[in-house]
Amino acid sequence: MDDKVNLAQKLALLDGPYQPGIVGYLNDYKLAVVKVLGEFVWHRHEDTDDFFLVLSGRLTIQLRDRDVVLGPGELFVVPRGVEHCPKADEETHVLLIEPRGTVNTGDAGGEMTEPEREI
Amino acid sequence: MDDKVNLAQKLALLDGPYQPGIVGYLNDYKLAVVKVLGEFVWHRHEDTDDFFLVLSGRLTIQLRDRDVVLGPGELFVVPRGVEHCPKADEETHVLLIEPRGTVNTGDAGGEMTEPEREI
Repeated sequence: MDDKVNLAQKLALLDGPYQPGIVGYLNDYKLAVVKVLGEFVWHRHEDTDDFFLVLSGRLTIQLRDRDVVLGPGELFVVPRGVEHCPKADEETHVLLIEPRGTVNTGDAGGEMTEPEREI
Repeated sequence: MDDKVNLAQKLALLDGPYQPGIVGYLNDYKLAVVKVLGEFVWHRHEDTDDFFLVLSGRLTIQLRDRDVVLGPGELFVVPRGVEHCPKADEETHVLLIEPRGTVNTGDAGGEMTEPEREI
């Protein structure tokens, strides 16, 4: 993982939605791509902010008081501790950045929890 | 800086090349956009990796033993301590992520050093 990363090529390696693949690291942070389709699960990360950059498609990050809607080239950082639930009506490609060890479902857990996986 | 960020809109606020503008934060990391044109300065960051994602154009990250050439949607993380020198023959737009306080010119210093500036 010491060479350049083509994000579209990495996304093509993913199967279904909400199964992030780690494509690199920045110090103790993981860089991951994920396909988003449908609704995820409401959760929060008590210990970290959460970075989303949309590469293609349209991502809605539902917060309890509003929706943040992102198109390609738009990013949003969910502050630590803030409940959020991503969703997309079309397949949407996203770059995620979080500290290594951050669980995708945060405090919620459940069946959408995925292990950390390098691709 | 608690709302979404449109990277193209932020890039339009920048003047010349190699003058990064901070568009947000991820914990103790700064998220910055920068225009790249011409050659920067050889430098290293002893304490941190250095994240580059090309948004448009074509970026060459010169390393001492090879060049890494990035197009849109391609990223590279320069490992900590590794000398590098970015350059571009056309105006190129880049998302940078580094710990807050990281100096753009690293150990080199000099006239291309820029203060941290939010846009």
